[in-house]
Amino acid sequence: MAPIKVHGSPLSTATQRVIVSLHEKDLEFEFVPVNMATGDHKKEPFISLNPFGQVPALEDGELKLFESRAITQYIARDYSDKGTQLLCPGKKMALVSVWMEVEAQQFEPAASKLNWEIFYKPFFGMTTDPAAVAENETKLAQVLDIYESRLAQSKYLGGDSFTLADLHHLPNLHLLLVTQSKKLIESRPHVSAWAADITARPAWAKVLAMQKN
Amino acid sequence: MAPIKVHGSPLSTATQRVIVSLHEKDLEFEFVPVNMATGDHKKEPFISLNPFGQVPALEDGELKLFESRAITQYIARDYSDKGTQLLCPGKKMALVSVWMEVEAQQFEPAASKLNWEIFYKPFFGMTTDPAAVAENETKLAQVLDIYESRLAQSKYLGGDSFTLADLHHLPNLHLLLVTQSKKLIESRPHVSAWAADITARPAWAKVLAMQKN
Repeated sequence: MAPIKVHGSPLSTATQRVIVSLHEKDLEFEFVPVNMATGDHKKEPFISLNPFGQVPALEDGELKLFESRAITQYIARDYSDKGTQLLCPGKKMALVSVWMEVEAQQFEPAASKLNWEIFYKPFFGMTTDPAAVAENETKLAQVLDIYESRLAQSKYLGGDSFTLADLHHLPNLHLLLVTQSKKLIESRPHVSAWAADITARPAWAKVLAMQKN
Repeated sequence: MAPIKVHGSPLSTATQRVIVSLHEKDLEFEFVPVNMATGDHKKEPFISLNPFGQVPALEDGELKLFESRAITQYIARDYSDKGTQLLCPGKKMALVSVWMEVEAQQFEPAASKLNWEIFYKPFFGMTTDPAAVAENETKLAQVLDIYESRLAQSKYLGGDSFTLADLHHLPNLHLLLVTQSKKLIESRPHVSAWAADITARPAWAKVLAMQKN
């Protein structure tokens, strides 16, 4: 059987989201780097995999998928017999779905704008905009106040076990923790304990090791 | 058994998304209006249902859910024996997930900003910003070019049958069709045929009838 292929960039948070899910499931895969600096994600052959021209894309045999959160759901569902269970059975799945949507609709918009300003802009030699930092720190703080309440009642966002609802946060959460924005995490004890727990997972360590190579 | 309760506003596209899914599944529910004009969505008792203070929220017995796309997925999964099948079995679900993510990440941001400018602002006596209209019409046109290619190959976005991937578009798609932005739909034959098909569904007619009451 042809191995799963992930087309993406090690620096892309969406690519990392897919790769950590493959490691959680103990699945072998081939990583195909897409050079975003030369705009390869906007050209053939990549745009035949994702017409929106955004990394990552995944090939599993004949199946070609894009959108990181759709790919992780496919992996979690179709390889349910492998590695970590990343979904919940029955009615318990409802709250996993709620917190997956919260990540996408509430956490990611503020966290990704903040990480762009604080991490990626200096990395690419650009200048951070302090007003954008302040605005998104305020937004993210409000979101994390609600996370603090949720995580005071529940070990993980979706319930008692680690699921995609937690996993989807890993790439942006890691960047927050290595920048000045870590104060937003560290000042909230339940968020801080959750962040320490999920970033310590061996699957995430494998993503970080890949970035260093 | 206590009926399902939907807390929301008939004017809210997210509320409409949940209600159309309940009609597709032939499920009875009680609609509990939340007065957004007086900020009731930011106060108790509503924020105990959704701490993010956004409509809608759903109660089904003891279960309390928020985030419209999480609610529709719950309804589609847990009431799989009722009404229209809104998900696909097995590997076919992967492409439904992809196009559900496309709606949330690509279509909704441009379409909702456009509808805010062209529909809601005049409705609330505010002034439309022509620059924001132009910017989001350009973005949405690029997204709909990709939809046109997809719908040339596939009757519905997720595959051969109507699923949540189509349904999630209905509220914003309807507003586009009743404003100047309908040109973006009508100029693309496959998008136009798809839009006509899905907005003609009886479940959507029930949502529109509710708005008129």
